Amino acid sequence: KINRERLWKDLHSTCEWGKGERWGDGPTDIGMSRLTLSDADKQVRDWFVETTKSLGCDVNIDAMGNIFAVRPGKRGGPPTYAGSHMDTQPTGGRYDGILGVHAGIEVLKTMNDLDIKTEYDTGVINWTNEEGARFPISMVSSGVWAGAYTLEKAHNVVEVGGGKATQKSELEKIGYLGPLEASYKANPIGAHFELHIEQGPILESSGGKIGAVDGAQAYKWFTITVKGKDCHTGTTDFENRSDAMLAAAKLILHSHNKATEYGCLASTGILTLRPGSTNTVPGWVQFSLDIRSKEDAIVSKLEESLKEDFQRIASGKDIGGVNAQGTKGRGCSVEWQFDTDSPATKFHEDCIKCVEASARDMLGTNAGSQVKRMTSGAGHDSVYTSRHAPTSMIFVPCREGISHNPAEYCSPEDCGNGAQTLLGAMLRYDRL
Amino acid sequence: KINRERLWKDLHSTCEWGKGERWGDGPTDIGMSRLTLSDADKQVRDWFVETTKSLGCDVNIDAMGNIFAVRPGKRGGPPTYAGSHMDTQPTGGRYDGILGVHAGIEVLKTMNDLDIKTEYDTGVINWTNEEGARFPISMVSSGVWAGAYTLEKAHNVVEVGGGKATQKSELEKIGYLGPLEASYKANPIGAHFELHIEQGPILESSGGKIGAVDGAQAYKWFTITVKGKDCHTGTTDFENRSDAMLAAAKLILHSHNKATEYGCLASTGILTLRPGSTNTVPGWVQFSLDIRSKEDAIVSKLEESLKEDFQRIASGKDIGGVNAQGTKGRGCSVEWQFDTDSPATKFHEDCIKCVEASARDMLGTNAGSQVKRMTSGAGHDSVYTSRHAPTSMIFVPCREGISHNPAEYCSPEDCGNGAQTLLGAMLRYDRL
Ligand SMILES: NC(=O)NCCC(=O)O
Ligand SMILES: NC(=O)NCCC(=O)O
Repeated sequence: KINRERLWKDLHSTCEWGKGERWGDGPTDIGMSRLTLSDADKQVRDWFVETTKSLGCDVNIDAMGNIFAVRPGKRGGPPTYAGSHMDTQPTGGRYDGILGVHAGIEVLKTMNDLDIKTEYDTGVINWTNEEGARFPISMVSSGVWAGAYTLEKAHNVVEVGGGKATQKSELEKIGYLGPLEASYKANPIGAHFELHIEQGPILESSGGKIGAVDGAQAYKWFTITVKGKDCHTGTTDFENRSDAMLAAAKLILHSHNKATEYGCLASTGILTLRPGSTNTVPGWVQFSLDIRSKEDAIVSKLEESLKEDFQRIASGKDIGGVNAQGTKGRGCSVEWQFDTDSPATKFHEDCIKCVEASARDMLGTNAGSQVKRMTSGAGHDSVYTSRHAPTSMIFVPCREGISHNPAEYCSPEDCGNGAQTLLGAMLRYDRL
Repeated sequence: KINRERLWKDLHSTCEWGKGERWGDGPTDIGMSRLTLSDADKQVRDWFVETTKSLGCDVNIDAMGNIFAVRPGKRGGPPTYAGSHMDTQPTGGRYDGILGVHAGIEVLKTMNDLDIKTEYDTGVINWTNEEGARFPISMVSSGVWAGAYTLEKAHNVVEVGGGKATQKSELEKIGYLGPLEASYKANPIGAHFELHIEQGPILESSGGKIGAVDGAQAYKWFTITVKGKDCHTGTTDFENRSDAMLAAAKLILHSHNKATEYGCLASTGILTLRPGSTNTVPGWVQFSLDIRSKEDAIVSKLEESLKEDFQRIASGKDIGGVNAQGTKGRGCSVEWQFDTDSPATKFHEDCIKCVEASARDMLGTNAGSQVKRMTSGAGHDSVYTSRHAPTSMIFVPCREGISHNPAEYCSPEDCGNGAQTLLGAMLRYDRL
């Protein structure tokens, strides 16, 4: 049995690094703002390295700053890992990613306490930049490990918001550009288990306790640039404008309407415009577009139709819908930049079964309805590990499904349930 | 006769301070980025003070940094001024405001050259922050002079974009917080003439050379804050979102549609959102709204109806229009902050006639169709001076009506025509 109190205490102690907004009165009712490769991220990495070394692990860092802590088993060979991430959204919570890493460490501590000797090596991974919030490719470092991105491409990703920092410059700055090759070939994984909050409402609203995750939905990210022409808001009539902000507003609304029609998701989380003056119609707007569906084909279909529609909408022609009333103006141009994608993913049946068995074992008689197979709405590093190693995930409920929000919350009971299931799943897999 | 070449040369020489984007190959095909109270603004102010002193003027600076340069006439009493501004938009041009101040100086130089003794004092004013681009109240310093704003309110306006600078802190920083009271009572104006580019297409497209401006249209500026809730773009279905960016997109589009319906203008030039991450639905969006009409009543009517509609649109209810397809979601709240207004303004008939007579004089036989009475689409410091002194403006054509854009352009001929008309109007008024 894992030590639930120790897990809770440890988890909140590292949340001192990168504290965000307070949202409630309790001592842990404070969000997180620990962007990847920031100074706060360095502090928690240093803690991770020190802690896992003190637990008897060999610690290795690869060229993406991924940290692999390995606890030797009876025989060598690719380890069975618990992996997740300690970076957060700019206004994130204390559980997304952080819980998975801490649960992995709690698993190691429990194995040490009980003097468990595993057949094969086991370990914990802290993946770099899972969030994609600062450098806009999510799961980019497990992606490099899996061969989905070249090291060069990943090193050169530039931070959002107009800054100049790249992933490489920041890895160097905080001293986490490691010597190990970031590759599944040079550094293979035996199996990957990831405990994570669900980040959605399904478990909570259906009374579920543990989700045995069978895969993840597909998504694509784009940066859309709308180019018009700066002009005076008071002297330029609508006919003579190329209003990039008005066009962007139409495109965002249209992407939402079209996603509704296709039964999938479209979201804009970043928007910047130039020049940014109350009395100048903006000639330049750039925004992010995140589209998702359980099916790759629907993501592609939405992408195709938006590519066509955006052009026509921005031209200002009356094509009904968002342009029904706004057919005046000289039109704008639209450019699409593809940032990243994560195709629909299926996890490994052996791993899913280890999760289910371990969850049932823990929950006892009521387990039947409390353990649910489910598909992740979010991407996770497990999406990439699953390309080269048996993988599954464990979901636990989070309050009201809230995530990417300071008020994200997972109860001590659910955190403990997750870590207990993780321990059971890893030991079961080790014996397979 | 003014010296057209000297005017052109002087004007472009001061554009070295605050150079913006290059847009063409010519030596002066470079825009301006001289935000009010910036270091570049200090440089051009220093030049203004030095130059007007060397022309024999008394120079006084008031508590808003407005600079009054006075050339003594035969008798004392409130001077007849040429006034405009030398601050620019972040991506502005070389003529908006700058031409008016330079033309005023050229008028003084010509008077000196020809040894003209005016009946009353004459002079030139450089008004502070006409643009409202950095501190979002346009014409704020002529507004304080006119008693439309208290000094305290104006001093405390904070810069856009999240910075902390206020007008007072920046006046102090560049050394232009002057000892003179900013008030029409303490520092009266005899008459105010302002030469300005039209910033619209009417003169150019109708073959007009000089606009005798009879007033300015009304406008109001607001800052709209939309509050929703941060959430994950991949795990939160549309029903469970309070998407502030989607709501803002609808509000911007709706304001455009409604303005179209009312035959007036609505524009959004600034938009910021939080937290700003591709996979987080923004819980907070703030944008500027600039609404304009020739009639105060229409501005008020649009304001009223948008106040009502914004609330209902953001609530997510199906009220047709922009919400026709987007009726899902938990809704957002909307807050309005009033920033500034400039009611519809009528200039003084005596001054308008001085402009017309002087323009006709200069243009000779063709003058009839080339001198046009017109109303300004933009606000100008003349709007405020007209509250306490006879005022009119002189418009000259600018290419394609383009303004608030680096490629803003007024030909040497039109700049010269404007300055010549300004000289004639000031001398005529002096004799009245
Ligand atoms: N779990 C999580 O928030 N992952 C980031 C990638 C995504 O946006 O789905
Ligand atoms: N002329 C000019 O651009 N004035 C600024 C105030 C306005 O937006 O009309």
